[in-house]
Amino acid sequence: MILGTFSLILGTVGTTASRSAWPLVRRFSKCHVCCKLAPNWGTKKQRLRKLVAAQKMATPEICQVLEPLRNAVKEQGDLVRKLKESGAPELDVKKAVNELKARKKVLEDKELQLAPPEVGFDRLRMEDLLKRRFFYDQSFSIYGGVAGQYDFGPMGCAMKTQLLSLWRSHFVLEEQMLEVDCTILTPEPVLKASGHVERFADLMVKDLKNGECFRLDHLIKAHLEKLCADKKTTAEQKAEYEDIVVKLDGMNKDEMSAVLRRFAIKSPTTGNELSDAIEFNLMFSTCIGPSGLVKGYLRPETAQGIFVNFKRLLEFNQGRLPFAAAQIGNAFRNEISPRSGLIRVREFTMAEIEHFVDPSDKAHPKFASVKNLEMVLYSACNQMDGQPAQRITIGQAVEKGLVANETLGYFLARIQLFLLRVGVDPARLRFRQHMSNEMAHYACDCWDAECKTSYGWVECVGCADRSCYDLSQHTKATGVRLVAEKPLPQPKTVDVVEALPNKAALGKQFKKEAKPVSDALAALTAQQVDLLEKDLNDKGEAEVAVGDSKVTVTKDMVQVKRYQKTVHVDELVPGVIEPSFGIGRIMYAIFEHSFRVREGDEQRTYFSLPAAVAPLKCSVLPLSNNPDFTKFVQQISSALTQHDVAHKVDDSSGSIGRRYARTDEVAVPYGITVDFDTLREPHTATLRERDTMLQVRCPIEDLAPLVHDLVRGKITWDHVCSVYPKFEQQEVTKA
Amino acid sequence: MILGTFSLILGTVGTTASRSAWPLVRRFSKCHVCCKLAPNWGTKKQRLRKLVAAQKMATPEICQVLEPLRNAVKEQGDLVRKLKESGAPELDVKKAVNELKARKKVLEDKELQLAPPEVGFDRLRMEDLLKRRFFYDQSFSIYGGVAGQYDFGPMGCAMKTQLLSLWRSHFVLEEQMLEVDCTILTPEPVLKASGHVERFADLMVKDLKNGECFRLDHLIKAHLEKLCADKKTTAEQKAEYEDIVVKLDGMNKDEMSAVLRRFAIKSPTTGNELSDAIEFNLMFSTCIGPSGLVKGYLRPETAQGIFVNFKRLLEFNQGRLPFAAAQIGNAFRNEISPRSGLIRVREFTMAEIEHFVDPSDKAHPKFASVKNLEMVLYSACNQMDGQPAQRITIGQAVEKGLVANETLGYFLARIQLFLLRVGVDPARLRFRQHMSNEMAHYACDCWDAECKTSYGWVECVGCADRSCYDLSQHTKATGVRLVAEKPLPQPKTVDVVEALPNKAALGKQFKKEAKPVSDALAALTAQQVDLLEKDLNDKGEAEVAVGDSKVTVTKDMVQVKRYQKTVHVDELVPGVIEPSFGIGRIMYAIFEHSFRVREGDEQRTYFSLPAAVAPLKCSVLPLSNNPDFTKFVQQISSALTQHDVAHKVDDSSGSIGRRYARTDEVAVPYGITVDFDTLREPHTATLRERDTMLQVRCPIEDLAPLVHDLVRGKITWDHVCSVYPKFEQQEVTKA
Repeated sequence: MILGTFSLILGTVGTTASRSAWPLVRRFSKCHVCCKLAPNWGTKKQRLRKLVAAQKMATPEICQVLEPLRNAVKEQGDLVRKLKESGAPELDVKKAVNELKARKKVLEDKELQLAPPEVGFDRLRMEDLLKRRFFYDQSFSIYGGVAGQYDFGPMGCAMKTQLLSLWRSHFVLEEQMLEVDCTILTPEPVLKASGHVERFADLMVKDLKNGECFRLDHLIKAHLEKLCADKKTTAEQKAEYEDIVVKLDGMNKDEMSAVLRRFAIKSPTTGNELSDAIEFNLMFSTCIGPSGLVKGYLRPETAQGIFVNFKRLLEFNQGRLPFAAAQIGNAFRNEISPRSGLIRVREFTMAEIEHFVDPSDKAHPKFASVKNLEMVLYSACNQMDGQPAQRITIGQAVEKGLVANETLGYFLARIQLFLLRVGVDPARLRFRQHMSNEMAHYACDCWDAECKTSYGWVECVGCADRSCYDLSQHTKATGVRLVAEKPLPQPKTVDVVEALPNKAALGKQFKKEAKPVSDALAALTAQQVDLLEKDLNDKGEAEVAVGDSKVTVTKDMVQVKRYQKTVHVDELVPGVIEPSFGIGRIMYAIFEHSFRVREGDEQRTYFSLPAAVAPLKCSVLPLSNNPDFTKFVQQISSALTQHDVAHKVDDSSGSIGRRYARTDEVAVPYGITVDFDTLREPHTATLRERDTMLQVRCPIEDLAPLVHDLVRGKITWDHVCSVYPKFEQQEVTKA
Repeated sequence: MILGTFSLILGTVGTTASRSAWPLVRRFSKCHVCCKLAPNWGTKKQRLRKLVAAQKMATPEICQVLEPLRNAVKEQGDLVRKLKESGAPELDVKKAVNELKARKKVLEDKELQLAPPEVGFDRLRMEDLLKRRFFYDQSFSIYGGVAGQYDFGPMGCAMKTQLLSLWRSHFVLEEQMLEVDCTILTPEPVLKASGHVERFADLMVKDLKNGECFRLDHLIKAHLEKLCADKKTTAEQKAEYEDIVVKLDGMNKDEMSAVLRRFAIKSPTTGNELSDAIEFNLMFSTCIGPSGLVKGYLRPETAQGIFVNFKRLLEFNQGRLPFAAAQIGNAFRNEISPRSGLIRVREFTMAEIEHFVDPSDKAHPKFASVKNLEMVLYSACNQMDGQPAQRITIGQAVEKGLVANETLGYFLARIQLFLLRVGVDPARLRFRQHMSNEMAHYACDCWDAECKTSYGWVECVGCADRSCYDLSQHTKATGVRLVAEKPLPQPKTVDVVEALPNKAALGKQFKKEAKPVSDALAALTAQQVDLLEKDLNDKGEAEVAVGDSKVTVTKDMVQVKRYQKTVHVDELVPGVIEPSFGIGRIMYAIFEHSFRVREGDEQRTYFSLPAAVAPLKCSVLPLSNNPDFTKFVQQISSALTQHDVAHKVDDSSGSIGRRYARTDEVAVPYGITVDFDTLREPHTATLRERDTMLQVRCPIEDLAPLVHDLVRGKITWDHVCSVYPKFEQQEVTKA
């Protein structure tokens, strides 16, 4: 589990300043990442050159503009380091970190603003196409729609199916992971143990009259932006307000409440008074069973299903580490104000992996196979120094200690390979390391695969390397030891202290509750048994924690036993590498990265999706409704079916150009046209490629295996062009 | 949507008498199915012969025992027919139907009791295997578990993935259906329109002291069974109590409450007093968004997602009928007392199809391709006549009118082909027609594919042919016309009456609410406009229904316009053929049907799953840990990967026989063993088939393509045996 994976995002989306959902566990826990490397950036000139090289787009002029902003970040980064090293009070560190984040944000906003816009990208036109050809659209819109919920239509659904199937083959099959499929409804105790019940919350305020709710950070931001736009506001005030907006993301409840009061903010829709800040839990709650007494939630992530099944999975793997479990499924977060389309929604599909390892050995046998892969890494150090991301092989990154270990490095590389395979633009992908103040307290290292979109950098995959906090929590809550065993090189003798329950006596006293009490006794640590024994001897009775409550046991109910035994294995709580994929976000990034406008004909827009994720792989079009074509269309269609090529016959009226344009819109990569030459022997038809619009003429019996091989990536379009004669025809471009 | 598809089941599961969840809409709505055929069953002797032929298992002795029960059913069936024909009062018909159902149940229970048990089937042993190898198991069991929720482990999850992928290719790709993926969270108005909020309920009672809930029918049944077991109960009383149990399924709230009072039933766990009967809605409710004001439910079926998207889907299909939409996804029902393992759960995966057609034309272009398929049909008539199911081709069934039309027949046939392909035993599959009193009032015909299990006949797929009730309901609720258009042979002239809203006047009066009022005016029927006009003329104002409330409009706000126009199309509300698959139930049936005990070694149990749904297709086993084997194992493994064959290398220690037994347990159909002969040229290895345990010896380069073709069904194991030399080896059978 990444606590708040999908809430973290707004910290990196565009210019939206906002809080992550898990501030309490994320901040100020450990400091070890940012100080790992001692950066040496050389002279100013050298640094400028490096920047130009790292960011292809960045001209010297742009670098000149960014330079002071970078320096401001670095200055603050150094201060934070110094404060931490000197063991300064936590509050001082926190303030300095907030200032650091604010300066980083100013730098990143400026970078995005200066970067040349993606050529021809127009979000409104893309959204129009997505809607018009029903890739996805708002759910229940005939009922007015529900914010943050989307339905995938035939094209979006087919693409999602392909994406998940590729994910399964790229991760689950390739690494022989243990895939599970757990329930969405989760009883409260599970999510209490994981920390979600207590801490999975955002701040909001309510309109005191009509009950309308607002996310507090959004509200303050909108209010201050309005003030800034006001002519009466002085430059000085403006600067101050902008500073507050930038710092919102790091503010806690009291700080934000203070801002709310200082500006006396009212409801923007009614002008009514607002409540104080309220912590709103983001989980959807419900009751399981008819009594109304068993509280449950819709899972906010799929990972807990894996953790609660750890024992079964370890057993399935015959007790051996490492092994990975995986799960694809829906998760739910009751966002206060969903926005940004598919990026921040209330119901979404995740694909999560938990790779359990012996924490003392994170080498990976297959690391060599990826070590030469180049990646763009944006380390915590770079972020603190105001430096851009760097291009480096994952082998070097692990060698230098930039990435913590081989297993983490292996997964980062595999994530990149997957994202590129499904259509993410390599120039708009980076891996950003969490700074220590962003990480949950139990994480060692954490990297997000971020895709650049018109909303800014969007976290699409999180990948944490951490101690198995959740396993320990579930062990604590249930008394079931979720641990693995490691054979010892030599057997060793250990002292054992046990509190043996007297079941008869417990049964008599506790009736139905005897079992939990007995389990609680058996789960006590050696130290706890010592204390228990002392109490029993001193007072004749002792208290034992059972779940949330305590019970009193007397001397006759428990016997303390001490002995030595020889053990052949060590128990260990596994560490876990945890890649967590937001499927909807990845799809959104792919849509943006593959949206195209046909050169010379601005009316024609299409998606240049890789064949592997295209909803349909091929179209079959008769040139006209000449009945002689039918036989050949059918013949080609059945050959394609035999070759497992998902295709569509489009024999509707309309010019061939118009029909090509329609299939381009839904990203069909190849098109076969049956024309008058097809009727002549040897029978041939044309094959067209979507992106280049080039056509070749092939014997019809070659077509199905050819398209099959193209889709599977076994041959390239260039190869096809070199083998078959080019077919020249003026494509009617006007739709 | 089939209202209550998955609640219906208990009417046919084993000896459990219980109510279906939708009694109010299901019963006494139409009577047209049972009277469609005039059955002629010939003389008693002829009938007996037919019975023996129809039920392979049934000996003349068994038929003799069943004969009086069959006669009792027929007698009552005839009475019901007569009452309906004569237009008897509804209450009388209802009573007669309840008696008919009771008699049917007695007959079916006796049939199941007399049928020879499945050879070697032992549910406990099967469940042990399912649990031990983690096909599936109870969710959250380290927290004590939650009733009616199950997690699929690696083997169950892989099998489910394959099953769904086959479903997709068998239905969605084959028929070019429009697959969608809609959200689970559904706002209340949608499920109000569909009827679920009002009527999707079961009866329960509460312990007045501790709040524990009991499903009322279960409670009464258990109480009466206890009474029957009491020695003091007379034979006469026993007969009466049994009669009540059998009739429970047909009882309404008042009738069941009467039974509750008559026997003064108390809580079976505490002896406390119980509440009156309460209708408990089976949907899980939650709130969407932070205000707590937007009520929502977890969808109880996936179909509504298709209906609310009808307009977009029709448009995607360029406005043409017929077309089918499909959806795979989870649905939720808050069962009062879940039971029977995967059969009655609270969270489950469904796969649903909505095939929209012009109701006046239900011919199907591909019907000829299935018309010779033999099926076991258990018609409503047979059920009323106490007759068993009959074996008949679907072509004949449609011709005779037994199945209403070609499209319905086509889907029934395709459902059977699918079920057999994934491993349902043809001897334990039947299609049972709903009797008119079971069907929702808007259904024309409905058949359930039922699988025989140790719980009795279990409904696994429902297939209804019906009017599109849901589309009309959503149209009513939203004002959005969910209809299709049909080109007219000739244009026609029609009179149009419209209430044109005066937007300025409405805006002034209703402000924000002007739009709904305006929409409501535009959606009025011609008749309603006439009434409106009359009121406006008479009183100067009129009432208009807007959603649940009414508003008053005045003369200046609306103008009534009458004119003629020429139309080229007719509007029509499509009919729909609706196959609805319960994936968990199908999986459970397959598990039961494929569970085997190895002859001669009762300790060895396994699943004889078809290769197409087996979680893994092949194992690769080195005979021992001889290092020379490694190279060949790796070579075979990569060849299998290249051929897309999911496999597992098992190089653990343990005899080869023990390892075979382990792979048999998880249904791996083929096993390759590398042994000492492999090391010699030409390099060969053995290939073993799970069910027969036969082995052949093949060149290692043949193995991967061979297994690939076997798994895809391109060649048979018999063929392999005829081509390659048999390999004789004593398999070590003791694990």
